[in-house]
Amino acid sequence: MPDTVLVINAGSSSIKFALYEASADRPGARLLRGQIANIGGRASLEASDAHGEPLAGTPRFLPAVADHDRALDHLLNWLARETQGTRILAAGHRVVHGGAKYAGSVRIDPQVLDELQSLVPIARLHQPYEIDAIRAIQAQHPDLCQVACFDTAFHRTLPDVAQRFALPRSISETGVRRYGFHGLSYTYIAEELRRSHATCAEARVIVAHLGSGSSLCAMRGGRSVATTMGFTVLDGLMMGTRSGSLDPGVVLYLMQERGMSAEAVSEMLYRRSGLLGVSGLSANMAELLASPHPHAREAVDSYVYSVVRETGALAACLGGIDGLVFTAGIGERAAVVRGRICRELGWLGIEFDEHANETNERCISLPASRVQVWVIPTDEESIIARDALALSRH
Amino acid sequence: MPDTVLVINAGSSSIKFALYEASADRPGARLLRGQIANIGGRASLEASDAHGEPLAGTPRFLPAVADHDRALDHLLNWLARETQGTRILAAGHRVVHGGAKYAGSVRIDPQVLDELQSLVPIARLHQPYEIDAIRAIQAQHPDLCQVACFDTAFHRTLPDVAQRFALPRSISETGVRRYGFHGLSYTYIAEELRRSHATCAEARVIVAHLGSGSSLCAMRGGRSVATTMGFTVLDGLMMGTRSGSLDPGVVLYLMQERGMSAEAVSEMLYRRSGLLGVSGLSANMAELLASPHPHAREAVDSYVYSVVRETGALAACLGGIDGLVFTAGIGERAAVVRGRICRELGWLGIEFDEHANETNERCISLPASRVQVWVIPTDEESIIARDALALSRH
Repeated sequence: MPDTVLVINAGSSSIKFALYEASADRPGARLLRGQIANIGGRASLEASDAHGEPLAGTPRFLPAVADHDRALDHLLNWLARETQGTRILAAGHRVVHGGAKYAGSVRIDPQVLDELQSLVPIARLHQPYEIDAIRAIQAQHPDLCQVACFDTAFHRTLPDVAQRFALPRSISETGVRRYGFHGLSYTYIAEELRRSHATCAEARVIVAHLGSGSSLCAMRGGRSVATTMGFTVLDGLMMGTRSGSLDPGVVLYLMQERGMSAEAVSEMLYRRSGLLGVSGLSANMAELLASPHPHAREAVDSYVYSVVRETGALAACLGGIDGLVFTAGIGERAAVVRGRICRELGWLGIEFDEHANETNERCISLPASRVQVWVIPTDEESIIARDALALSRH
Repeated sequence: MPDTVLVINAGSSSIKFALYEASADRPGARLLRGQIANIGGRASLEASDAHGEPLAGTPRFLPAVADHDRALDHLLNWLARETQGTRILAAGHRVVHGGAKYAGSVRIDPQVLDELQSLVPIARLHQPYEIDAIRAIQAQHPDLCQVACFDTAFHRTLPDVAQRFALPRSISETGVRRYGFHGLSYTYIAEELRRSHATCAEARVIVAHLGSGSSLCAMRGGRSVATTMGFTVLDGLMMGTRSGSLDPGVVLYLMQERGMSAEAVSEMLYRRSGLLGVSGLSANMAELLASPHPHAREAVDSYVYSVVRETGALAACLGGIDGLVFTAGIGERAAVVRGRICRELGWLGIEFDEHANETNERCISLPASRVQVWVIPTDEESIIARDALALSRH
C-alpha cells in the first residue's frame, strides 16, 4: 500500500472518513471512504472501496463505542488492519469554524487548538465534536500531522460591508458577523472553474451549493464577495430541515408570546423546519418531488423561491452575473429544481438548455446564452486531503 | 369651517393627527396637522396649519396627560376650539396590523375591535396604542364613524410562496407568516403611478420606502407581489435603529451564549441597531452624511448595500424591473443615497441622471433608460383620510 492521507469529518453522532493515496505531491485516488454512525447508541462502522463497493466485513456493529475517543480508536485500528499497515502522513479535519482569523487551512498545534476551542460558543453544534476528534487522534498518534480545513476560510475575502450586521458596534466587535460556510465546497468549485472554464473563472459567478445544507456564494475572480449563510449555518436559503433567513421578530415572538425556550426554538429551526417543516413529510428533495401531496409541492415551491430570491440578491452584490454553477446533492441530481430555478432566472441572461439539463450534462445553458450554467459535482474531501498533505510537507 | 375628516396615528408615547376638509366626495385640503408628544411624561401639543406654519398657542404643555385617553380628550377639545365647532365626519386610524383578514380599510364596529385586539400578540409595540386611541374616541363620541387603515392590507395580494416562512406547519398555520408593512405608503404610490405614469403602473416596479423605517415592495400591475418586511417591522432592510434581516442564529446566540433576555435582544434590535448601531453616532441619515467620522461612513455603506442587495432579491421575484420609485424621508431627500443605489443597480437597466437627482426632480433616470426611476413623496395621511371619508358614507 502507498502512503496515505486521512480525511475526518466529525459530527455530533457520526465520524465520516476517507483515505487518499499520498504517493506524489498531490493526493492521488481515494482508496476508501466510510463512516462510524450512531456514536453513543448502536454504533456501526461501514465503508466502501474506491469503486463504491462495500468493504468486506462492514457494516459491523461497535458495541463499546460511547464517544468520539473510542470511535477513533476503533477507526484507526480498523484502518491499520484494512490497509495492512500503510503509513498515514497526515489527518485533515473538516472544521466548521475558523473565525475571523483563518483564511486557509492550518497545521494544528496547541495554540491552534486553543483558538478552535475559543470558537465553540459560536459553533456549538459542530465544533466540539471536531475538536474531540482532533484530540483523540493526537492522544493515540502524537506525532501525526493534523490539519484543520475550515468551512469559513474561503469567505475571509468578503468585503466589510458583506460581513457586517446592522447591530450595535459593541456586539459586532465581539465577533458577531457574517462568516459564511460551505467554503471547502466553494474552494473546490472555484478551482474546478479555473481548470475547466478559465475565462468564466475570472468573471462574476454565483455558485449554488444545494444540499441538505444549502447556500449561495457570489464569486468575482474566484474569490468570495457575498454569501447567504451568516453567523451560523441557519441563515440564507431554506434547507432540508433548517429555516434559512427568518425575520428575527419571529424568534422573539415565539419566545415572548408563545413561551418557547431558546433551546426549543433552536431545535425547531435546525431540525424541524425547511423542506421538512413546510411539507410535514420529508427533508429529502427526491422524495418530495416524487410525492403527489400538495404540501410536498408547497415545500418545493418555497425552496425554488428561496434560491431564486437570494440569487437575485447576490447578483446585485456582483452587479450582474456571467456564470451560475449548481452543486451538492440537490444541485447535482434534481434536474427539475435546476430547471425551475433557471427558467425563473431567465431575466438575468440565462438561456436554458432543457435537454442538457434533463440528461444531466455539465453545461446546461444554450451556446448563445450570455450567462453560462454548469452542473459541477463538488468534492470537499479532496480539498481537505490536498491541504493536509501540503501542510504535512511544509 | 367645512366638515372634516380626522386622521390619527397613535404610537406608544405620541399621537400624530391631521385634519382634512371633507366638503366633497373626496377629502380636500389638509387644514392642519400636529402631534401630542411625550404622553405620560412632559406631554405637549404642537400643530401647524396647511402651510406648515405653527398654529398660535402651540406648542403647549399638557401637564395632566398621563395616557392616550386623556391625550385624545385634550386633542378633541382643542380641535373643537381651534376649528370653531366644525363637524368631524369620520376618524381614520393608522393601524399597523390587520392580520391575514383585512385586505383594505374597514369601518370599526365591536367585532372589528375584537379582531384588532386579537392581533396584539403579533404587534405588541404598536397595536395596543392604536386600540387605546380608537376606544378613547369611541367613549367620547360614540356615534362618530371610525375607520381602521392597515399597514398590512396592501400586501394581502402576496402569493402564498412569498408569505410562507420555512417553518413547521404547526407554527405557520397559527399566523406566523410574512405580512409586510408600509402598505398605506405603497397604496399612495401605486395610485400616484396609475395617475401619472399609467404605462409603468401596469409593469414591474420596485418601490423603495426609505425612512426611519425602511422597506421595499415589488409591484406588478400596482399590486404587491413581494416585500422585505415580514412578520414584524424588524425584517428586511437596515433602518434608522432597527437591524433589518438578521441570521436567526444571532438571536439564539445572544440569548444562549451571552445571557441576554428576549426583552433585551428585542430592545437592541428595535432601538439600538441599524444606522444608529453601526455608526454609534446617529439614526439620522442627513447627520451621518454630514459627518466626517469613518463609522458614519460605514453605516451609510451598510444601508446602501442593504437596499441594493434586497432590490436584487425583489427584482428576481418580479423577473426584472421596469421602474424604481424612491419615497419617504431618505428616499425623498437623500440624493447621495439615491445616487449610490442607482449606480450600483445600473446592471438592472438603470441609466441614471445625476443632474436630475441632485436637483431633486421627479424623474431621475435618463430618457433612454430602460428602467425609469422616480422620486415621489408619499402621503399616508391622505389615504387614511380618503378611506375614512369613503367608508363613513357607505
